[in-house]
Amino acid sequence: DSHYSPGYYWLGNNTLKVPLVLHKENRQRLVSLFLSNHKETIQKNSYILLEGGKSVTLYDSDHEPLFKQEKYFFWAFGSDMPDCYGLISLDDALNPISTLVIPKLPAEYATWLGEIHSCEYWKSIFLVDNVIFVEDMTEFLVKNNATTLYTLSGVNADSGNSLTTPKFEGIEKFNVDTKLLYNDFSECRVYKSPKELEVLRYACDASVSAHKAVMKNIKIGMKEYESEAEFLHHSYKHWGCRNVGYTCICAANANSSVLHYGHAGEPNASTIRDGSMCLYDMGAEYHGYSSDITCSFPANGKFTEKQKIVYNAVLDASRSVIAAMKPGVNWVDMHKLAERRILSHLLTAGLLQAANGVDELIENKIGSIFFPHGLGHFLGLCTHDVGGYGGDAVPKVNSLRTTRTLKAGMFITVEPGCYFIDHLLNGAIADPVKSKYLNIPVIETYRKFGGVRIEDDVFVTENGCENYSSDLPRTVEEIESFMKK
Amino acid sequence: DSHYSPGYYWLGNNTLKVPLVLHKENRQRLVSLFLSNHKETIQKNSYILLEGGKSVTLYDSDHEPLFKQEKYFFWAFGSDMPDCYGLISLDDALNPISTLVIPKLPAEYATWLGEIHSCEYWKSIFLVDNVIFVEDMTEFLVKNNATTLYTLSGVNADSGNSLTTPKFEGIEKFNVDTKLLYNDFSECRVYKSPKELEVLRYACDASVSAHKAVMKNIKIGMKEYESEAEFLHHSYKHWGCRNVGYTCICAANANSSVLHYGHAGEPNASTIRDGSMCLYDMGAEYHGYSSDITCSFPANGKFTEKQKIVYNAVLDASRSVIAAMKPGVNWVDMHKLAERRILSHLLTAGLLQAANGVDELIENKIGSIFFPHGLGHFLGLCTHDVGGYGGDAVPKVNSLRTTRTLKAGMFITVEPGCYFIDHLLNGAIADPVKSKYLNIPVIETYRKFGGVRIEDDVFVTENGCENYSSDLPRTVEEIESFMKK
Ligand SMILES: [Mn+2]
Ligand SMILES: [Mn+2]
Repeated sequence: DSHYSPGYYWLGNNTLKVPLVLHKENRQRLVSLFLSNHKETIQKNSYILLEGGKSVTLYDSDHEPLFKQEKYFFWAFGSDMPDCYGLISLDDALNPISTLVIPKLPAEYATWLGEIHSCEYWKSIFLVDNVIFVEDMTEFLVKNNATTLYTLSGVNADSGNSLTTPKFEGIEKFNVDTKLLYNDFSECRVYKSPKELEVLRYACDASVSAHKAVMKNIKIGMKEYESEAEFLHHSYKHWGCRNVGYTCICAANANSSVLHYGHAGEPNASTIRDGSMCLYDMGAEYHGYSSDITCSFPANGKFTEKQKIVYNAVLDASRSVIAAMKPGVNWVDMHKLAERRILSHLLTAGLLQAANGVDELIENKIGSIFFPHGLGHFLGLCTHDVGGYGGDAVPKVNSLRTTRTLKAGMFITVEPGCYFIDHLLNGAIADPVKSKYLNIPVIETYRKFGGVRIEDDVFVTENGCENYSSDLPRTVEEIESFMKK
Repeated sequence: DSHYSPGYYWLGNNTLKVPLVLHKENRQRLVSLFLSNHKETIQKNSYILLEGGKSVTLYDSDHEPLFKQEKYFFWAFGSDMPDCYGLISLDDALNPISTLVIPKLPAEYATWLGEIHSCEYWKSIFLVDNVIFVEDMTEFLVKNNATTLYTLSGVNADSGNSLTTPKFEGIEKFNVDTKLLYNDFSECRVYKSPKELEVLRYACDASVSAHKAVMKNIKIGMKEYESEAEFLHHSYKHWGCRNVGYTCICAANANSSVLHYGHAGEPNASTIRDGSMCLYDMGAEYHGYSSDITCSFPANGKFTEKQKIVYNAVLDASRSVIAAMKPGVNWVDMHKLAERRILSHLLTAGLLQAANGVDELIENKIGSIFFPHGLGHFLGLCTHDVGGYGGDAVPKVNSLRTTRTLKAGMFITVEPGCYFIDHLLNGAIADPVKSKYLNIPVIETYRKFGGVRIEDDVFVTENGCENYSSDLPRTVEEIESFMKK
């Protein structure tokens, strides 16, 4: 009666029972791709070596934040145990022999942290071929005449960071290649398997359900963080999601123009005021897979005319993109499409002016004043999932997190937004080229409006795409009717 | 309308408004003690230099866990901003000139993370004498003819870890002393000021309220994590506590014998069974100060005879200790008192046997089979707060987190427990000396019982002590009556 049973992760009740063969299939996919791309290079008795996350304490204290597994390791092995390694033999593409390497726990572990399970037990849970102790890893590799160990080292396009090369006693006995694996592995993670999609669908369902509960229960005068508390509670108690993929953004009032509001320095601490827009960006995580969903709605349940203008601009962008998404479509074009839709609404509504229409606005980069972030990003085990600048990506365009051409199997957020951000407006007004496209007196009436973002999680299919968060009220009418008490 | 206003931290509604002069007083206390202890050593133009926590991302990703401030820095400055330093001049014991050193934020910060405030703004919030940018820190120190910078470096008794010495450009221009400050600073943190106690009382009140809500709403067949979800929600939504001091331990069934259950590897995922004990150890945190409270109760609201025996043994230990606590009493003696009370109950109930009574059990170390952890620990900004092995402490006794003599102003948990832990029982049964004190057939009927812990947060006053968590139902009768539907 725990979260693990042989071959499954499950939190009971109505939560999703995840077959851990998901990760065995992931290992097979990885080895197949890696071997097929590097047939000539990879020698017999080579292994992929992954290092799981280490348990950590904060500063000098013994405070242990809730452990979160390193995501490449998790993708391949599905284990949330700290201080592990994983070995995958490269000798057989179809059935790669997989070895989970776990720490040998001291007897006191049973007193403080729980029952110490046998290697056989973990083998049955995670469907691997071997489970060995960290201290026996070198001997295991020597006995199997291991030649080269392929490890992960490559720059994460969102953070600029890289994983460090594993260090364990005896690693110097082997040839360690830190270069070859990274691109193939991150590319593998880009395409979601049917079993991964089931988990992602569940995480999305949990978030949709929790977002709806939050919208239903919002009251003028509440603190923003009360909505965060409700989202976390709903997705944990009813859906078993202990973690969120990222810190909840619960922004009301003008705060909705701060794209990553909600962090420790801006802790969702404002009072929700009548007449203001809420922008709630929150995503539950289950078995390591994250959703990432934003709902924007009027705090009092009824859109003002101004709110309708901005909201419908963003909704049109969102729906236009989702209607256009299919394999072969380039993401930069989707971003431009969203920008064009938003600008044309602002033009129609008289916030912008241009003798030659929207094209002139686009040429003069008016879009990024109101829509300063990228249209979306890959989503999976990471909120900003890997691979955005792999494949056919061209170098970074503005703040886009990917510039790739869509392919079936990709899972990506669609999150156009329109914001009234003081320092961007001030910069544009002060810019002689840009200011002439702004109807400044009208725009000034939108100061402190905040912003609108509509974010969905979308799977690219063979012929088009499927929106996993489509069960949310999204149109003005749907939202107003849903929020009616 | 944010969590900060000039001189205050406040989350609105009914939450506690914390005067940030609390931290100014802390700085004064620290400088007074440090100067009076090292009059001869400390030269003119010396400074205390503290380094706040850095913002971090997980592994190679751009995932930022919610920032938690380094606690020494927080104690002195009260700011939850990452990447800061603090300087406190040592030239004036009564009114030490304090300088908060903050990062200069790039213009894009306003788009992504929020309004960029001026140095004057932060000065008014935190009641410091100066606010400067990190890049100007060296110049500031040079201009003020700084000689020695005293930094923190010393071994945390609970973790064995130490803070690292700050590194910033130009630090080599000064004499950096890493030795002198640590003991005085950790000693200062041991004694809670009236303003700190108000925050601690509030954190305790929040936890008491949330524990009660959890007890009221528990149902057989629920998952343990549903209780965690409820505690987190209650203390956040109604009390503004976004963080807990440590990961929630929600242990039902035999899990209640795992002292630190609830971590990622044992994620409160069992189904709560009829007839089982719940051991719920959860503590809300407000403005960085943590509570740490454990309630043990029968899942179905009605104690069995066995549960009464074990519970009353622990309750007697708890009440005996709290009745005895006052300045001058040594904590090791309190631990022994608790152990004695527990053993005498187990003896009376026939689980143990000893021709010469409890003394014989104690001499033969029977206590730690059932009560294998220390009686309690200092509590404050850290759950296991600093200073347990400062002052008059003797070297570590068993697993005690302090061996000190109580003094007025200390804040400490009282948390006796009695557990039936398979591997400790098996070890004792196999031990020819210990086994003869065990009534093995009776003890075998307690296998899978789990355990009981009763944890209160207690302030040591001039004449005795005050229990900040006294508003919980604690006796068998109180609990049964409270849980009655
Ligand atoms: Mn997103
Ligand atoms: Mn404790």
